[in-house]
Amino acid sequence: MNFITILGLTAGTLTTLAFLPQLIKAWKSKSTKDVSLNMFVILCVGILLWIAYGFLIKSFPVIISNAVTFILCLFILYFKIKYK
Amino acid sequence: MNFITILGLTAGTLTTLAFLPQLIKAWKSKSTKDVSLNMFVILCVGILLWIAYGFLIKSFPVIISNAVTFILCLFILYFKIKYK
Repeated sequence: MNFITILGLTAGTLTTLAFLPQLIKAWKSKSTKDVSLNMFVILCVGILLWIAYGFLIKSFPVIISNAVTFILCLFILYFKIKYK
Repeated sequence: MNFITILGLTAGTLTTLAFLPQLIKAWKSKSTKDVSLNMFVILCVGILLWIAYGFLIKSFPVIISNAVTFILCLFILYFKIKYK
């Protein structure tokens, strides 16, 4: 694995892990009033397109990080709808 | 501009624009209690690495979308710290 791929995977790991504190916060506090519904709806659609783009440019970091982020965003979206 | 670049730019536009509703919500409501501070701190660091990765793989969509997202996230971070 070369430096560029490691850099991409590190970037992807960070921007993916970033959603975990928000997910845990929403789960524990059962409050998502200040979280934007539109943000996570638009984000989910955009992330799906990033996954397609990642396949086309054959970038493993783009594919894998967006795939995991998509799952985390779906959970945040679920809590947003559940707890309002 | 080919299909792959257009797809990447569309994906980047969506995942960038996604942060705008959150920014507007925080700005208008002056409340960011449910927004995770850690999320936006980790996100900003990760986005900076994505920009570096974008330069190295010469992906214009990765560079431009992350550059704009970084600015939006900085503003959300500012509101998070300001309004708690």
